[in-house]
Amino acid sequence: MSRLFLFFLLLSQIIIGQSKQDEQQLSDIYQAALTQGKSYDWLDQLSNQIGARLSGSLNAERAVQWGKEELEALGLDRVYLQEVMVPKWVRGTFEYASIITGPGMSMNVPVCALGGSIATPASGLRAKVVEVQSFEELEALGEENVKGKFVFYNRPMPAVLINTFEAYSKSVDQRSRGAEKAARLGAVGVIVRSMNLRMDDFPHTGSMNYGDLPLKMRIPAAAISTNGAQLLSSMLSLNKDVLFFLKQDCKNFPDVRSHNVIGEIKGSEFPDEIIVVGGHLDSWDLGDGSHDDGAGVVQSMDVLHLLKKMNYRPKRTLRVVLFMNEENGLRGGLKYAEIAQKNNEYHIFALESDAGGFTPRGFGFQANPDQFDKIKSWEALFKPYMIDRLELGGGGADIGPLRDGKIVLSGLRPDSQRYFDYHHAANDTFDAINKRELELGTAAMTSLIYLVDQYGF
Amino acid sequence: MSRLFLFFLLLSQIIIGQSKQDEQQLSDIYQAALTQGKSYDWLDQLSNQIGARLSGSLNAERAVQWGKEELEALGLDRVYLQEVMVPKWVRGTFEYASIITGPGMSMNVPVCALGGSIATPASGLRAKVVEVQSFEELEALGEENVKGKFVFYNRPMPAVLINTFEAYSKSVDQRSRGAEKAARLGAVGVIVRSMNLRMDDFPHTGSMNYGDLPLKMRIPAAAISTNGAQLLSSMLSLNKDVLFFLKQDCKNFPDVRSHNVIGEIKGSEFPDEIIVVGGHLDSWDLGDGSHDDGAGVVQSMDVLHLLKKMNYRPKRTLRVVLFMNEENGLRGGLKYAEIAQKNNEYHIFALESDAGGFTPRGFGFQANPDQFDKIKSWEALFKPYMIDRLELGGGGADIGPLRDGKIVLSGLRPDSQRYFDYHHAANDTFDAINKRELELGTAAMTSLIYLVDQYGF
Repeated sequence: MSRLFLFFLLLSQIIIGQSKQDEQQLSDIYQAALTQGKSYDWLDQLSNQIGARLSGSLNAERAVQWGKEELEALGLDRVYLQEVMVPKWVRGTFEYASIITGPGMSMNVPVCALGGSIATPASGLRAKVVEVQSFEELEALGEENVKGKFVFYNRPMPAVLINTFEAYSKSVDQRSRGAEKAARLGAVGVIVRSMNLRMDDFPHTGSMNYGDLPLKMRIPAAAISTNGAQLLSSMLSLNKDVLFFLKQDCKNFPDVRSHNVIGEIKGSEFPDEIIVVGGHLDSWDLGDGSHDDGAGVVQSMDVLHLLKKMNYRPKRTLRVVLFMNEENGLRGGLKYAEIAQKNNEYHIFALESDAGGFTPRGFGFQANPDQFDKIKSWEALFKPYMIDRLELGGGGADIGPLRDGKIVLSGLRPDSQRYFDYHHAANDTFDAINKRELELGTAAMTSLIYLVDQYGF
Repeated sequence: MSRLFLFFLLLSQIIIGQSKQDEQQLSDIYQAALTQGKSYDWLDQLSNQIGARLSGSLNAERAVQWGKEELEALGLDRVYLQEVMVPKWVRGTFEYASIITGPGMSMNVPVCALGGSIATPASGLRAKVVEVQSFEELEALGEENVKGKFVFYNRPMPAVLINTFEAYSKSVDQRSRGAEKAARLGAVGVIVRSMNLRMDDFPHTGSMNYGDLPLKMRIPAAAISTNGAQLLSSMLSLNKDVLFFLKQDCKNFPDVRSHNVIGEIKGSEFPDEIIVVGGHLDSWDLGDGSHDDGAGVVQSMDVLHLLKKMNYRPKRTLRVVLFMNEENGLRGGLKYAEIAQKNNEYHIFALESDAGGFTPRGFGFQANPDQFDKIKSWEALFKPYMIDRLELGGGGADIGPLRDGKIVLSGLRPDSQRYFDYHHAANDTFDAINKRELELGTAAMTSLIYLVDQYGF
């Protein structure tokens, strides 16, 4: 009895000691991230010296080179590029729209082509407009009410949902599949209300696809700003025969070669167990992609930078991956998983930051119950840093293809309220980033990577 | 046994029923706040049509009239003004500073007079500078090293503290008491590093006082922007004999009459139990006071507006109070408590919002253990709305004087990361407000007021 007691006493001392060590380590990580982190300066470079970096663009290649050079300067054990073919879509030189309310009377409205859309005829496209809130409504209208017209999808993101990503998921079908649905009923083009919870003048782009629609049936698709959508809707309610004019000369090109950028620190005890942290290096082409996903890129790089700066020697192999082409193809994420499988690599954990550089509130996890129990045991360690939510659900688009039933996937969950003010729009720029909020995300990510490295799954 | 069982069954049904009713009520409140709230439009009016409203200014009186009229338009049971004498300090027509590095060589730096400071001589003040990080360092230097010089307080807000209000409390002594301390050692003026965690060009004002320092010993005090502070510090490290030039013509006037604005809905069951929700109507004079504390004002007004719009009939008396003069005197808060006591009013709860219009994360409470147990029982109701922290500690400056050992005091706790980017500076303006974040604060406050009204203390 006494021996057993001593055993448990010893065990509890070890556990308490370990927990104190973890507390200290997280404190050190936060201190380093908030005073010596490189996230903000790196993002300044990526956003202001390179800027927008849509897959297939020259800027995307500059970003690849920049990422590689910056990771090399950290003195990691290995930095390399992973080749991947990506789509190339180019916005072109003009996009323009107006509401024509009568002969010689028109009002310009802010629009942008949706990524993947075809151009209008060079002289533009002029047609009546039919406004709908849903595909059901569209189907009910039928070909006789749609043929020869623009379909105007105007269902707003629901304001009542607290998590704005949930609100996004309730409305983004209009953007991604709206053109295909409308084209099948004979529409000549689609105008989609921007995925934005604010009323403002920024049109928000984003990917769309035509499904298996034959080439000759494809129609141009553009986003309209929320203010523009409201104006158009008002005009239509006054006169359903107003015309809409759209002109855009975007174009799809053949795939081009690009790269994922990878850096790693070899594990000292379990080098074959790989832990990934990453974001996506490509961005849309309107802003400079500071929140989407420059933030995730620099935070992920900073995780390795900070741990190295703290002379932390990881037990497992830590790998930062800057994925190419999340926005319009996910080719980087797919390629990374394909090669990992081919090389028989054993990934135990992957963390993605792709929800903006805002104050972190927690992480979402794809994990089995045992794995999640372990994660929940870290809650108290995170509490002092206002990381209040370690929850099931979540992950990230780029790391999704790694899913194999064993790996734990996770996504950083920052406060989501402002994300869709900037998402895919011209105002997603460096000035919308708060340094501390960005750094707190880095610190939370570094802390999580540290704990996974210590305890594995 | 069977009867007892039935009794508990019934009781548990009632509790479950009540809890379901509360869930529904909170859902309705959030829906109303996010789609029909007046917070954002009201703040637009207060910030953009009235603007800065320092106590004693004409704008402060316009804000009083505006608040009264808007509350009257809500059809509350009673709206009235409460007279209070407030300090009047006026910034004057110019404030200007430069670092003089040599004959004919100078660099301008952004400064602003601290609230309550005296002016410099009309021709300005030119002197050497001694830089310190603390009062201890100042005392150690002694009169021989301070006399005839500017004292430059340059201790930054500590970046490593997660709660920025805590960081503020660690550095604000430099602003509030720095002039008195320096004057006693013969300094001619003080320059205080702005209470700001960012590096930028905005000087942040705020109240200072001379304690019991005789009039003739008082010296001018100004804040310098964080970038300006860094520049000055660098220049001093190159040459400790650089001169600083400061010119400001601010002035203190005799007290003037102003008002708290009060609106109330009479309780239907316990009209003598009063629940207060409020913010402060005055602001500093550089920006338009959107975060400090326009946000708290409109949120508090919206609590009563939303409950009325939902046809909620409160059991207890709900009172919104727009306090005057929080910034440089707290006269409104003191007067309100004084009159409450004189009238033998029974306040059970007071909630203040004065920490910015950012995403709410919780509430802080001053409560005894029984009261706090009741509050903690509401945690699950708040969870779906990402209100994760109901914690001890907190309240608000204006409601502080109501403290009597029985009343529960509470303060809304929004995310604090960006607050000191704007606090007391020219960039605390309406464009720094996100509509949803503001409205989520309103919704959380309305929910809490509803629960307190239902269950009392």
